[in-house]
Amino acid sequence: MTEKVNLADKLASFSDHWAPRVIGDVNDCAVKLVKLHGEFVWHHHEAEDELFLVVKGRFRMEFRDHAVTIGEGELIVVPRGVEHRPVADEEAHVLLVEPRTTVNTGNVTEARTVRSPQRI
Amino acid sequence: MTEKVNLADKLASFSDHWAPRVIGDVNDCAVKLVKLHGEFVWHHHEAEDELFLVVKGRFRMEFRDHAVTIGEGELIVVPRGVEHRPVADEEAHVLLVEPRTTVNTGNVTEARTVRSPQRI
Repeated sequence: MTEKVNLADKLASFSDHWAPRVIGDVNDCAVKLVKLHGEFVWHHHEAEDELFLVVKGRFRMEFRDHAVTIGEGELIVVPRGVEHRPVADEEAHVLLVEPRTTVNTGNVTEARTVRSPQRI
Repeated sequence: MTEKVNLADKLASFSDHWAPRVIGDVNDCAVKLVKLHGEFVWHHHEAEDELFLVVKGRFRMEFRDHAVTIGEGELIVVPRGVEHRPVADEEAHVLLVEPRTTVNTGNVTEARTVRSPQRI
């Protein structure tokens, strides 16, 4: 039986920041949810584009030469190879579309690195 | 320069039903927007999963053995090979994640078939 997924229900099931959860798979892409708060680490993904769709709140995607503020109902695709840093002054809830194997911190390893995101 | 996409702005740029528009590409997936109203055609996609995320309103995804009503902030992934028919009693706005080449009517050809969705 094919069932729906309620984003708010899934988001209510975790509270930590920067650790993506997998909520679905569609072809070679995974759909993930993540909560952002504070400054993340500068990084890039060698071979993967990353889509960020804001479900609640807003955050700023910093690039080396500009920054874009993304609010509810807006999305941005960060192309592979492009250095970026998400910054959220207040908590933001974001839906990601990227390969299941994408590591949140890309080419960098630090305390918030998640290599095998949990399925919820 | 990497720019954001505002879903409401894109949705305001077209008014016809059942004809998906491409608003972004992320790896092998395209992100599309579509407006639903009325009953679509029963169909399946041979080799592609299809994700439907409701941005506004609600619709019913009918399967041969059950149906699921999907509202704002909810999504459903229809696996490849599974026959389905979207039905929207009132207009619904939906974000799709699927290959750019996915044909809206899958294995069926009819008046609403779109083989090369427009990029907006």
